[in-house]
Amino acid sequence: MSKSIFYHAGCPVCISAEHDVIDLIGRSNVEIVHLGNDKSRIEEAVKAGLKSVPALVTPKGTVLHINFGASMEEVIG
Amino acid sequence: MSKSIFYHAGCPVCISAEHDVIDLIGRSNVEIVHLGNDKSRIEEAVKAGLKSVPALVTPKGTVLHINFGASMEEVIG
Repeated sequence: MSKSIFYHAGCPVCISAEHDVIDLIGRSNVEIVHLGNDKSRIEEAVKAGLKSVPALVTPKGTVLHINFGASMEEVIG
Repeated sequence: MSKSIFYHAGCPVCISAEHDVIDLIGRSNVEIVHLGNDKSRIEEAVKAGLKSVPALVTPKGTVLHINFGASMEEVIG
């Protein structure tokens, strides 16, 4: 199975959701991307359909927006 | 590990998220509750902290609101 990708931006809501996602699907099944630290991944995240963070993109390409930490506009700055 | 509970109300966003959650964490690890069909579970869902559906309550009791299908006010009707 290919990995899911969890995008976040370091916000408290993001960190909490990151822990929950890792607990649920296992650390080895998810790549964690911090868009604040790795701005080169922002374009890919927007193309995947991210509207806000935190969000999980499944191996099938579906975007699951989980709770609400910040809009992508805030992340892009 | 105790199960997560996925609450939904039959909306298209809910059904799509249900498939994604089952793919990610496995059918045997999640109880599916349709609040439209099983209104006796609404009180428990509200107590758990649900603001909208679909949402996943983890074994630790954290509520992950996934995308947005309908508010709990709409579900309660």
